[in-house]
Amino acid sequence: MGTLKEDAYIKIREGIVTLKFKPGQWLHDTELSKLFNIGRTPIREALIKLEQEGFVKSMTNKGFMVSEIDAKGINELYEVRAYMESLAVRRLSLDPLPEKIKILEDIFINIKNLNDNLPLSVRFNIGQKFHRTLIALSENELAISIMDTVYDHIERVRWLDISLNDRFVENMESHLRIIKLIKEGDTEGAEKEVKRHVFASKDSILKFFEQRKNLLYL
Amino acid sequence: MGTLKEDAYIKIREGIVTLKFKPGQWLHDTELSKLFNIGRTPIREALIKLEQEGFVKSMTNKGFMVSEIDAKGINELYEVRAYMESLAVRRLSLDPLPEKIKILEDIFINIKNLNDNLPLSVRFNIGQKFHRTLIALSENELAISIMDTVYDHIERVRWLDISLNDRFVENMESHLRIIKLIKEGDTEGAEKEVKRHVFASKDSILKFFEQRKNLLYL
Repeated sequence: MGTLKEDAYIKIREGIVTLKFKPGQWLHDTELSKLFNIGRTPIREALIKLEQEGFVKSMTNKGFMVSEIDAKGINELYEVRAYMESLAVRRLSLDPLPEKIKILEDIFINIKNLNDNLPLSVRFNIGQKFHRTLIALSENELAISIMDTVYDHIERVRWLDISLNDRFVENMESHLRIIKLIKEGDTEGAEKEVKRHVFASKDSILKFFEQRKNLLYL
Repeated sequence: MGTLKEDAYIKIREGIVTLKFKPGQWLHDTELSKLFNIGRTPIREALIKLEQEGFVKSMTNKGFMVSEIDAKGINELYEVRAYMESLAVRRLSLDPLPEKIKILEDIFINIKNLNDNLPLSVRFNIGQKFHRTLIALSENELAISIMDTVYDHIERVRWLDISLNDRFVENMESHLRIIKLIKEGDTEGAEKEVKRHVFASKDSILKFFEQRKNLLYL
């Protein structure tokens, strides 16, 4: 992939994930070209790649629009996530290498106790890092590539979950339980816990989605 | 997506899946443009989409090459497939609608007995149709889109499995067992059977891959 196209791709995708470009917003290649000071051809090629990943939709003769977010889509993202993370813990628990376990445990090393009064952004990042690391350690390149896109889609809506603060201790305990089950080689137990954990997040976000979705369009 | 680009995309992808374009073969946009009588811009845009899906690889200043096939990649494809099909049978078994069950059962309606002496291509098609239908009936658009690509990748290697003939009765019984478990709402049982079934296919293909992979390059 050419450097200019890659540049354009990374910048537009980041704008979408951080909601700088809002769901439903039109993206015009001439405007993006000016904004990022990148030619229209690499911008267009980046948009085609982003369309393929579901971040934008192309409308014939109208250009590209940032893809919208709805409850059905959130549900689908979390389902795929639950099953891809199950795949990852399966692989890890079938061959629980100490160096991999250590990488997972180190994510939580600086959290002295589960009641630490951590800011919301830190809570977000720990959870995200744990899940992205699970997938990375699976070493299934296809799953890694699928989840790279899925996590970014989820990123757009995750902070709608205002109950994350309440669920932090519960989530932390669940993360540690998953590590323990992997360590013990309990594949079935680890897969079950991952699914329970991810589906609980899904239910929580969906609970708040309808009443807070307008915030995505601010 | 423009019609010309879509045309180019479908034709090149079909060429790759049916091994008309071999793994490792260079695809030159000028040649493809002549072959399909489609302009170079839509050809290039189609190649970018195919790169995103892993069917070709772009090499800086060298153009595009049909992606190669190796045991690691086959393993990854079948793992993702096992888990996405688990997701599908979960959804189906949680709400086993009679009209969906009927669609699955109808796939096998013309097979009078499991010892029918069906040609290999028919055996292939029945299995493929069952699995693709499972995913389609899940109605998870994200999973459907992921598997559309995964099944086509698998297509490139599936006929390496020379033991498919022996496993036909076993596979058929497994398909019918999956339908029965969905019907009974036995989510855990259905998921287990799907995984067992897909991992058995994977083991069988991997067993023959090393000794027969040269056939992919003929």
